[in-house]
Amino acid sequence: MGVIVQKFGGTSVADIDRIRNVARRVAGTYTRGDEVVVIVSAMSGVTDGLIGLAHKVNENPDKRELDALLATGEQTTASLLAMTLKSMNFPAQSLMGFQVEVRTDHCFGNARIQDIRVDRVRRLLQERTIVVVAGFQGCDDQGNITTLGRGGSDTSAVAIAAALKADACEIYTDVTGVFTADPNLVPKARKIDRICFEEMLEMASIGAKVLQIRSVEFAMKYNVPVHVRSSFSDEEGTMVVQEDNGMERVAVSAVTMNKNDARITLRKVPDTPGIAARIFTPVAEAGICVDMIIQNTRASGKTDLTFTVPKADYRTALAIGKKVAGEIGAEDVFGDDTIAKVSVTGVGMRSHPGVAARMFACLAREGINIMMISTSEIRISCLIEQKYAELAVQALHTEFGLDAQP
Amino acid sequence: MGVIVQKFGGTSVADIDRIRNVARRVAGTYTRGDEVVVIVSAMSGVTDGLIGLAHKVNENPDKRELDALLATGEQTTASLLAMTLKSMNFPAQSLMGFQVEVRTDHCFGNARIQDIRVDRVRRLLQERTIVVVAGFQGCDDQGNITTLGRGGSDTSAVAIAAALKADACEIYTDVTGVFTADPNLVPKARKIDRICFEEMLEMASIGAKVLQIRSVEFAMKYNVPVHVRSSFSDEEGTMVVQEDNGMERVAVSAVTMNKNDARITLRKVPDTPGIAARIFTPVAEAGICVDMIIQNTRASGKTDLTFTVPKADYRTALAIGKKVAGEIGAEDVFGDDTIAKVSVTGVGMRSHPGVAARMFACLAREGINIMMISTSEIRISCLIEQKYAELAVQALHTEFGLDAQP
Repeated sequence: MGVIVQKFGGTSVADIDRIRNVARRVAGTYTRGDEVVVIVSAMSGVTDGLIGLAHKVNENPDKRELDALLATGEQTTASLLAMTLKSMNFPAQSLMGFQVEVRTDHCFGNARIQDIRVDRVRRLLQERTIVVVAGFQGCDDQGNITTLGRGGSDTSAVAIAAALKADACEIYTDVTGVFTADPNLVPKARKIDRICFEEMLEMASIGAKVLQIRSVEFAMKYNVPVHVRSSFSDEEGTMVVQEDNGMERVAVSAVTMNKNDARITLRKVPDTPGIAARIFTPVAEAGICVDMIIQNTRASGKTDLTFTVPKADYRTALAIGKKVAGEIGAEDVFGDDTIAKVSVTGVGMRSHPGVAARMFACLAREGINIMMISTSEIRISCLIEQKYAELAVQALHTEFGLDAQP
Repeated sequence: MGVIVQKFGGTSVADIDRIRNVARRVAGTYTRGDEVVVIVSAMSGVTDGLIGLAHKVNENPDKRELDALLATGEQTTASLLAMTLKSMNFPAQSLMGFQVEVRTDHCFGNARIQDIRVDRVRRLLQERTIVVVAGFQGCDDQGNITTLGRGGSDTSAVAIAAALKADACEIYTDVTGVFTADPNLVPKARKIDRICFEEMLEMASIGAKVLQIRSVEFAMKYNVPVHVRSSFSDEEGTMVVQEDNGMERVAVSAVTMNKNDARITLRKVPDTPGIAARIFTPVAEAGICVDMIIQNTRASGKTDLTFTVPKADYRTALAIGKKVAGEIGAEDVFGDDTIAKVSVTGVGMRSHPGVAARMFACLAREGINIMMISTSEIRISCLIEQKYAELAVQALHTEFGLDAQP
């Protein structure tokens, strides 16, 4: 018996039948004797619907008001789930972000949790009440409603689990766990039983959508073991935990891929101090996040400078690049949005040398040219032509021994 | 220049175009120099949709959770309207019930306002911000979300106007004001320019849907003049105000009708003390509101007892009547749900004797039989066969000189 936090995503609460399904699962945990806190997302499609409504008002709706609007999504699910549990004769109560209270900063649309006052939750748990918390939302010190950004309910769950010192934090989703690669791409992909926070963080940052990055940061900071699992089966999922010795046996834990970036190159840039700042300052001022940056020195005292940006910002970034190129005397600017980034991740890399070499050799064997490379301590990413993305993932998955045994 | 409270009902904010229309009207008032507080209802259909969702969970959903669910309707409109005003470059901010704060009792689904702390609203008004308040909702002293019952946004508006000592409280709706009769029934019905609180209260209690009863009680208690008008035109509406001398010139101000009731008769009930209690105690315990009650004494020492209940409770009440009839030895029980109640209302009745006689004579001339009669100081209601309802209203409208001049 302990305190269990269970988070259910949008597809898990998509309609009344699924909410009933969630209620049964929650009731099962409660009946075993655990104290249960449930965190819910908006029913799938609801948040996008509300954003659509706001965009009918204005392309760039006021952020404070947008948060108040979006928060209704989770409020709806939380009250419906509590209602369902009560109709099954389980004591339950919904709490919104301001009621919990999940105190955040003032950054509407992407607020960060500063403090969680779980007194009310604790009191309810002591009375053996199931507490249903609207995820994704909080309130600032003036009582304004804030939201935590896409996937914020994961962060709500982990943060509340940390504040309650919960015994487990279960993230229920529409997949059975974290996989060695996207099973849609690699049929032989295997579910990972245990993965460490650092690996999960790298995977989340390069496009694995299982958990919001911030929720993993929170879990790592407060050492909250997170169990990612399916709300549609009883199968064990993936435990995201602190690194331990058992994890270092494999060099690479997973292969991931995303097609979210575009590449911009400034050719023959004068190779003088301050040039990079001239280029990247206006890009940053436009609110564009640059991912990879590469600079190749040419013999001529000129240099080629290439960087990647999110596809959504491609046109804006290209226009800025062209403007700056004229000012600094670069020869040419060109861009490419038909690229993909393939990455291999694994804490095992630290003790297994040569992972990079093996990755490059594997891609070369398949005739795939590498455009850019970036690395972290536990990840290697290569930018390649988009058309080779699936092939690259499959080849790397086999290369690093991740294919499921038949 | 002063503080103006403007309330917009569901049809006035039914879609983004109408919300824009409301924003323009609010902006107009603001631009004239007034401080504006706007109270909004849920977009029309939204509350019923949410109730439908809750009923999919359970026929009798938990009231606390239902309130949390329903409150999302007004939250949506409030944030959308504030967003719209901001996109038109007017400073605006939405506030939910808990943010205002509108403090209520714990009676979920039908909470009563106990106190309104308008400090935050006042501060925003002083900064020349338009305050958009989600109507219909409040919160109790434990921070639970409560709602004020159907039409509760009217009460929100009047209560906030009272708390702010506002200079005007305008209720924008889909009709141009309060009429001498329903214009759909009586083409010659006229808009009433001024009506007093007492008359409005009587009219609301017998089915005129223009204002929630409680909002009129509030307006009367705190003497808040209410201007009922259309959100689709600039026409002056109806002022609901304290009674003054100018009002007593006519005997009857309005004729109303409703078909919401059903009638139940217990025949030949033993005429002994305690019998009425035996009948009405179980009815009250079933949560059924009895409206009219009539008891006719027969020569035999037996009595006929007739009462009316809301149509929705007809079957339940009839079953209770039959059970009790068996226990107390009444001869027979029968019911009728094809009835209507026609009423004439007017403070002028106090100084004009003979209004009742005129009403009965008028109905008799049309061959309409009166089943039951009930009266208040400023109202006379007659229960008649439903098929005569429209005819009765038209005849009484003419009888009391309310027809518009051609």
